[in-house]
Amino acid sequence: MNADTSFKKKPKHKKISSRAKAVVLLSGGLDSATTFYYALSKGYDIFCLSFDYGQRHKKELNCARYLASLNNSKWQLVRISFPWKGSSLLDKRIKLPQSGKKDIPNTYVPSRNIIFLTYAVSYAEVIGADKVFIGVNQIDYSGYPDCRSSFLSAFEAAVNKGTKRGINGKKISILSPLIRKNKKDIINMGSKLGVPFQHTWSCYKGERFLCGKCDSCLIREKGFTAAGIKDPLKR
Amino acid sequence: MNADTSFKKKPKHKKISSRAKAVVLLSGGLDSATTFYYALSKGYDIFCLSFDYGQRHKKELNCARYLASLNNSKWQLVRISFPWKGSSLLDKRIKLPQSGKKDIPNTYVPSRNIIFLTYAVSYAEVIGADKVFIGVNQIDYSGYPDCRSSFLSAFEAAVNKGTKRGINGKKISILSPLIRKNKKDIINMGSKLGVPFQHTWSCYKGERFLCGKCDSCLIREKGFTAAGIKDPLKR
Repeated sequence: MNADTSFKKKPKHKKISSRAKAVVLLSGGLDSATTFYYALSKGYDIFCLSFDYGQRHKKELNCARYLASLNNSKWQLVRISFPWKGSSLLDKRIKLPQSGKKDIPNTYVPSRNIIFLTYAVSYAEVIGADKVFIGVNQIDYSGYPDCRSSFLSAFEAAVNKGTKRGINGKKISILSPLIRKNKKDIINMGSKLGVPFQHTWSCYKGERFLCGKCDSCLIREKGFTAAGIKDPLKR
Repeated sequence: MNADTSFKKKPKHKKISSRAKAVVLLSGGLDSATTFYYALSKGYDIFCLSFDYGQRHKKELNCARYLASLNNSKWQLVRISFPWKGSSLLDKRIKLPQSGKKDIPNTYVPSRNIIFLTYAVSYAEVIGADKVFIGVNQIDYSGYPDCRSSFLSAFEAAVNKGTKRGINGKKISILSPLIRKNKKDIINMGSKLGVPFQHTWSCYKGERFLCGKCDSCLIREKGFTAAGIKDPLKR
């Protein structure tokens, strides 16, 4: 007798939920997309987190949502605001810088990454995740202070003193796998991981094509050239 | 000749703007109101910051706005959200605890104070303030991990590594003048500073009168009784 025992099989979502959970901060840019694919390659059950914080355009967010859906990962959008602006990314009256300067550029949004990370920690605590991934790097970057490893480790120490999980011995780790990579290495890494670069967006402007002039475009272009890979977004 | 030289006097706002600036996290509760009056007594030019984060009621926020206007201080409201809820203060389907338990109660909102503090630091950076006041205390409190001094000092260290002001040597200080005071001492302090307690709200419920049963009401009542002061909100 061949009884139908298929109903005894564990449903697929059971298997998924048994995997370790991780929150990935996914802006939709090249770095966060590579970080997302890195975390996927490690087998985590991933909860992507993106922010609508009044940025100049929503092209990045569309990329983030698409990348999450492409990989059947959960995607959570949080709407926040910076009423005091204080950055050219939030205030269209401030002109975007055209190229990298020695000082921190006016695209710096005060405490932006700290707020993103804190939200990620809140989310991690609610869903029971121990890992938070963030795609910052301190080599080919714009000099933002909240992209540096010294900040990330200090922040990790603080949240583990200020959260229920942290004080109960379930430490939350802030992981930044790109932190010491230059843009060339990030692009090579993303390429090996199968990141669809055509669905990432880096330009501060949200026009049809990359502007090719802003800090972010210049860093992206330099990276693709050095890696010997053609940027699919490049005309 | 008595020439009219009044026009040569510096306008009043000049004098105000020359004072050192401070951001005060003002929820509208008793502790944050006392902290606000403490900061006022120290002569700071104060920028009050309140949050609409989807809490059960808006009574506290009305108190915060009123207290700021009463003292001619700037008041900034920030609307944020916690889409994942995870606390009885955000999710009305979760019953509020009736009395203090040993464990962290379900009114704990994961990373709430960390997010508030991070916003305060962002605001401080934009307006050029070096001080952020928060009215937490770790004596008569609900056991929230982000109300403890060990967290606050770790957080201060992190933000000074992750902000433009911090890395440029203009350290931001997180001040918590109530941290080691019990509720009785806070009420005595507030009384001496002239805090209008009738315009503060502590109850987790937003009804006409204090419920008298929630954790926050019980701590408030105990404090007023110990201080020998009648709570003007008490029927």
